[in-house]
This record gives sequence, C-alpha cells and structure tokens, in this order.
Amino acid sequence: MPTQTTGSLTAQPSKTPSTVTGLLSDMSTIGKDVVRGGYTRPVYSTAELELREWFIDEATQRGLSVEADRNGAIWAWWDTAEKDRTNALITGSHLDSVPGGGPFDGPLGIASALVALDILKSRGTNPTRPLAVVVFPEEEGSRFGVACLGSRLMTGAIDPDKARNLRDSGGNTFAAVAKANGLDPRFVGRDDQLLGQIGQFVELHVEQGRGLIELDQPIAIASSILGHGRWRLRIHGQGNHAGTTLMAARRDPMVAASRTVVAIRDTALQQAHARATVGRLQPVPGGTNVIASRVDFWLDVRHPDDAVTAAVVQSIHQQAQRIAAEEGCVVSLTEESLSPTVHFDTGLLHQLQQALPNAPILDTGAGHDAGILSAFVPTAMVFVRNPSGISHSPEEHVLDEDAETGAKALADALETLLA
Amino acid sequence: MPTQTTGSLTAQPSKTPSTVTGLLSDMSTIGKDVVRGGYTRPVYSTAELELREWFIDEATQRGLSVEADRNGAIWAWWDTAEKDRTNALITGSHLDSVPGGGPFDGPLGIASALVALDILKSRGTNPTRPLAVVVFPEEEGSRFGVACLGSRLMTGAIDPDKARNLRDSGGNTFAAVAKANGLDPRFVGRDDQLLGQIGQFVELHVEQGRGLIELDQPIAIASSILGHGRWRLRIHGQGNHAGTTLMAARRDPMVAASRTVVAIRDTALQQAHARATVGRLQPVPGGTNVIASRVDFWLDVRHPDDAVTAAVVQSIHQQAQRIAAEEGCVVSLTEESLSPTVHFDTGLLHQLQQALPNAPILDTGAGHDAGILSAFVPTAMVFVRNPSGISHSPEEHVLDEDAETGAKALADALETLLA
Repeated sequence: MPTQTTGSLTAQPSKTPSTVTGLLSDMSTIGKDVVRGGYTRPVYSTAELELREWFIDEATQRGLSVEADRNGAIWAWWDTAEKDRTNALITGSHLDSVPGGGPFDGPLGIASALVALDILKSRGTNPTRPLAVVVFPEEEGSRFGVACLGSRLMTGAIDPDKARNLRDSGGNTFAAVAKANGLDPRFVGRDDQLLGQIGQFVELHVEQGRGLIELDQPIAIASSILGHGRWRLRIHGQGNHAGTTLMAARRDPMVAASRTVVAIRDTALQQAHARATVGRLQPVPGGTNVIASRVDFWLDVRHPDDAVTAAVVQSIHQQAQRIAAEEGCVVSLTEESLSPTVHFDTGLLHQLQQALPNAPILDTGAGHDAGILSAFVPTAMVFVRNPSGISHSPEEHVLDEDAETGAKALADALETLLA
Repeated sequence: MPTQTTGSLTAQPSKTPSTVTGLLSDMSTIGKDVVRGGYTRPVYSTAELELREWFIDEATQRGLSVEADRNGAIWAWWDTAEKDRTNALITGSHLDSVPGGGPFDGPLGIASALVALDILKSRGTNPTRPLAVVVFPEEEGSRFGVACLGSRLMTGAIDPDKARNLRDSGGNTFAAVAKANGLDPRFVGRDDQLLGQIGQFVELHVEQGRGLIELDQPIAIASSILGHGRWRLRIHGQGNHAGTTLMAARRDPMVAASRTVVAIRDTALQQAHARATVGRLQPVPGGTNVIASRVDFWLDVRHPDDAVTAAVVQSIHQQAQRIAAEEGCVVSLTEESLSPTVHFDTGLLHQLQQALPNAPILDTGAGHDAGILSAFVPTAMVFVRNPSGISHSPEEHVLDEDAETGAKALADALETLLA
C-alpha cells in the first residue's frame, strides 16, 4: 500500500482494540424481554433507539463521522483525508430484533465491525478508500412486516408509498413512526447518491443454522442466500356452533388448514434442501365454542433453486385445493413476497477467500440486508458459528472466542479489500 | 281455575298481541356488524344496553314491574294482586350475542316471552302465580369468557371473586364494567332470595342445530343439554429460524398441533353423537418466518353421556402425546371447564308435552342459562326451528310463521303451568 495522508481516525492515538464480547456486554441490558426471554428490540422502540445512541457514542469515541441517511440508517464514516466518498468499503448489520430474539442476530455484526476498525487502527492501517459501519433499520421486519425495510428503501426495492403505509400492530403507519423519530417520510426511498458511494459491502452475521457446527469451524464465507417467499393461504369453510353441529355436517376450515400444514411439512421433507414453514395461523372468529368460518395462515418456502421453490409452492397449492375440497372448503393462495436466490459477487468472494483461506463456503436460508444490497453493489457475508444452531430465539449463541475470531476475520477481510 | 283477584296487567284493557317478527324488527337496527355481518352485541356494549332499554320500554308499556337484580339481569314482573312472589313462573332468555351472530339467538326468547304474555292477556288469563320475563346478561360469554355468567352468578355456580376478576379483550375487569353500568360489584353472587321465588323456568330459544329440520317440525321440547367441556392443549417444541433450520432437524409444534387437530376430528367422527372442535389456536411467537416455539389450542367436546365425553378426551390426550413425541415436542392438556349433561325436570317436561302434544323431544349441544338454572329449579326449554341449521353466524334463521308458532306454544305452555 503506498503512503497516504491518513484518515481522521488514524489521527488519534492508537489504543488496544475493544472486544466483541465487551461491546455485546454493553448492549446486554437493553431490550430484555422478561416474558419471552431473550431480547425484543423492534425498530424505533425505546430499546432499539437506546442501542442506536450506544452505537453513535461508540462511533464518535472512535473519531468516526456519524451521519443519518433519509431512510433511517446510521453511517459511521472513517473518511480519507480527501473526504472523497467514492468506492467506499462498507460493513455493518442491524440492531433491531424479532420478539424474544437472541443477543447476536444483528448486534454481532455491529460490534464486530467496530472491533474490526479498532484492529485495523492498531495495525496502523491507513485507508486509501473511505470505510464505514452502517446500522440498517427494521432488518427483521418484526414491526412493519417487511424484512430489510431500510436497505429496500435505500435501493428502491420497495415502493416508498407502500413503505409509508405499512402499519405496526398498534395501527401506526411507518410514515408516522418515522416522522416521530426525526425522519421526513416524504423523502424515504431510493438514495442514488449514497448507493453510488458504495464500492463493496461486507456483512458479518451469526450463522442461523448448523452449517459451521457440522464443519467444526468458527467462521464461513457466504456463497448465497436461499430464494424464499411468503404466501398467504386462506381457507373458507362454514362457521357454526361447536355444540350443535354434527361432525359429519361440518365444513371446518381448521381441519382443512391443519391437514394442509401437515402436507406442507411432508412436501418439504421429500424435497432435498427445501424448507417450508407455517409459523403464523389465525382462525376467524377464533372462539373456543365456534367452528371457524375462515382460517388464514402463512407459508414460508426456501430453496437454493428458484424453480424448485416454485414447484414446491405449486405442489402445496394443489394439495391444499384437494384437501379443502374434501373438507367442503375453498382455499386461495396469494403470494406476498418472493425473493430469488442471491448469489454473492464471485470476485469479492475470491478476495475474501484469500483473506480467510481456512473459512469454508456456506449458503444460508436467512434473509439479510446484504441480500438486498447484492443486486446493486458487490456484496459478501461472513458467518460466525452458532453452537446451538438456533436463531430467532433466546437460545441463539456464540462462543466468546468465536466472536473475537469473527472480528479478526472481518478485519483481515477489510484489510485485504483496502489493499 | 278459581276466580281470583286479577294481577296488575289484566287491570289494563286487553289489546291485540304483538308479533314476534314485529318485536324482532324493532331490534333489527341495533348492533349490526358491518364487518362480520350479523350482529355483535356483547354484554354492556352500546348495542346490548340499547336492547335493554328497548326491553324495559316494552315491559313498561305492558304494565309489568321492571326490576334489576344485583347480578345485572332484568326482571319484568306480572305480579298477582297480592304481590306475593312465591312459586313464580319465569320465562326469558338473553340479548347479548357472539361476534357476528344471528338475530335470533337470545332475542327470539325475549320477544316470544313478551308476545306470550300478550297472548295470555288477550285470552283473559288471570295468573294465580307471579309470572316474569327475565333478561340474563353475558349468556354467550363473548366478552368475559364465561358463558351464562349472569345465571351462574345468581345461582352461585361461579365464585364472585373469579367473576369480578374476569377481563374482556380490552383488559377491563368484569367488576369495573359492571360498576360503570350501575352494578355494585361487591354484591354480585348467589341471590337466595330471588332463587327462592322461582317455581319454574321455561326458556324459548332458536334451535342451533338441524334436529327440527330433519323432523320437519316448527317447535320441540328439550330433554337435555349435552355435557361439554373445554380443555387447553399446549404443545412445546423448538422455536427456530424458518430459513436456516433443516426440515429433518425441526421440532415444530405447529405440525404436532395440526396433526392433533385432525386426530380430534377423526376421533369425534368415530364416536356416535360426539362433537369435538378446535376453533381457537395460537402459535407463539406467531411470526411468518419463525418456527413456533409453542402452540396453544382449545378443545371443545360434547356428548350426551358424560362417561363418553371423558373417554373421548382421554383418547385425544393419548393421541396428542404420541403425536407430540413423534414430532419431538411435549404436550399438556388442562381442563378449563366441564359441565355434565343437563337432564331437564321430568315433571315439567311432561306438563309441556300436555300443552304441546305435537312437539317432538330433542336434546341440544348448546349451553343455555336454562342449563345453569336447572340445577336449582325445575327448568324446561322450547326450541324453534332454524332452517339454516347454522347458529353463531349471520346465516342463523327463523321463518316468520315458526316464530309466531313458537310464541303461541310458549303461551300455551305457560297457561298450562299456571292452571
């Protein structure tokens, strides 16, 4: 690397890097969920706002320039002396969580990014390109129902009008909540200027499956994010009195929905690499002594091959139609979202392999902001082992030593990319 | 019948009786549910309070003495001249409804009672015993979760403390709502004085099944109310990420619950006269992209033979345990309520058969205030045909001519009992 004028960060005295476990410990009291266990930190909740303040404080202490963009993401810049923000190298993740989620999904990537910058600083790295840590809002979609809402808005992957009208469970629109948190909802949406500044994006994230357990490795490089979609199934039957309606006279949509849930699982079991889940189901009206008139339930399907995803959903639809007919019911299936499989940038992946020669290559079934950004800029991901194999649950876990290995790996990767 | 001093009602000039359809038409604009269709009239809602006012007005116009008791029921008395309230003959029903219920479940019994009194008056009947029309509150249990709450409180079938602490979906206690509606919640509970005044109770109600359709008859006399109970099933599995968890590694309580719902239906289908229903089911946390960690669902079982009800529930419990084990889950079953089969008073039934010689005898799977009262006083029920066979739904129906036939039958029955 040629000698350069140093960025603002390196103008400060170098000190011992923070540790990932130390930073996670700082966050560990924020947003605890005493009912579900784990953490509940929906976007713009008191907990998530407190985590943002913590991040801004940490970034400021490191001499980074903290900026909010018009879609609610926070960017902490390590600028070059020229303050030219071309071809920036970005790392980061999110701070929001699912209800009762674990402490690592999101925050591990933020803490690791800060520590990786500390490591680079301690190594005397003088960035020749701007480097930033980004915190994306509403990655989980647990408040407004659309995962990766921040990165979708920034890249234009969601219509701003649709986003403004999303509602949380309290009936508040995204527009109203964003406004109450200092955003001008008129200006949310694709941010070409910001997008144009990004050269590469690398997100470190806790692994949410068992890949690294089985490979007995602490970290991996992601090759792809499985294509996935959400469909709503609605089965109409005949609402009636649970006491007076003979079993043979029923057209019960709960029975039809239940048979369909079993068929969904059996279909996915028979298709290698497929995952199909029903985690949300609502009988209407939902009374104990009332045969439901309708059942709504949501199907989540993922597979590395988009054609297989489509075939699985088609098979499920056909089985649901047959089952509904057998139960005297009618079913409809509506696609709510569909994301094709994301293959991360091959060139960037090879650069990460040079930096992390021992890291295996894994795909993942979980969606990430990196998956949204990958359609616009070269993007990569690093996964850190989760010894429980469980995520979106308080049982999600990362060993202390793996967390530090992950931050060092991220530092190595960033250093290679800066070179 | 010996010549008697007449009651207060007969002191007024006799006029043409009202019609049931006319009185139901008066009520037809109150509490319409534009979303679900039908009517939503929970206890102490604006709609139910408006219906109460309507009833008080109708009763007052008929010269009846309207009184509220300390459990929120309204009593409209046709007193004898002596105003001695011993051995009173009571008829009545309820005005509250399930969400999106039909117009007849409850109001038909109230309208028919008023018309039956008109008919008795037009026949010049001079009651030798006091006669009253009662409106019971919260028969459906759709607001506070306990069906027949008013009659349960009056008879002491529910602990007053338990009742005071029941909450509606808005979190309001029954005590607070009762107080806001003029009741002193300290004094709710068993009313020995009022109970001691009741000689017999006859409730007319729309049939909620298909018995009278199949018999091709407009009215029936009830022999019994099927025993029924509610049980909560809770299946614990392993909450996890829907995208990253392989199908074979799952312990998904939604699949276990769904298989159990199908087993419940199949078990009831194989047992003559049994009814088993799951109308309420809640996955936790209930996210589209989350394998549930737990599913709660409620089982409603009814059968004329209490031993069969118990055997059906035991069989379901065993099947649920097997299914849960096969899915790597754990199930628990908790009894929430259990009411044995109610056999109505044989003597009173025979008196009604004398008055209504063409009426067939039917049992019913629906609970009623008459079922609660029958443990304390001789009680009977008259059912009116429902040509849809559907209840707790906007499709519930009664033909105009059947409604008038029902009121005349009730008048005939009351006249026989007064004789």
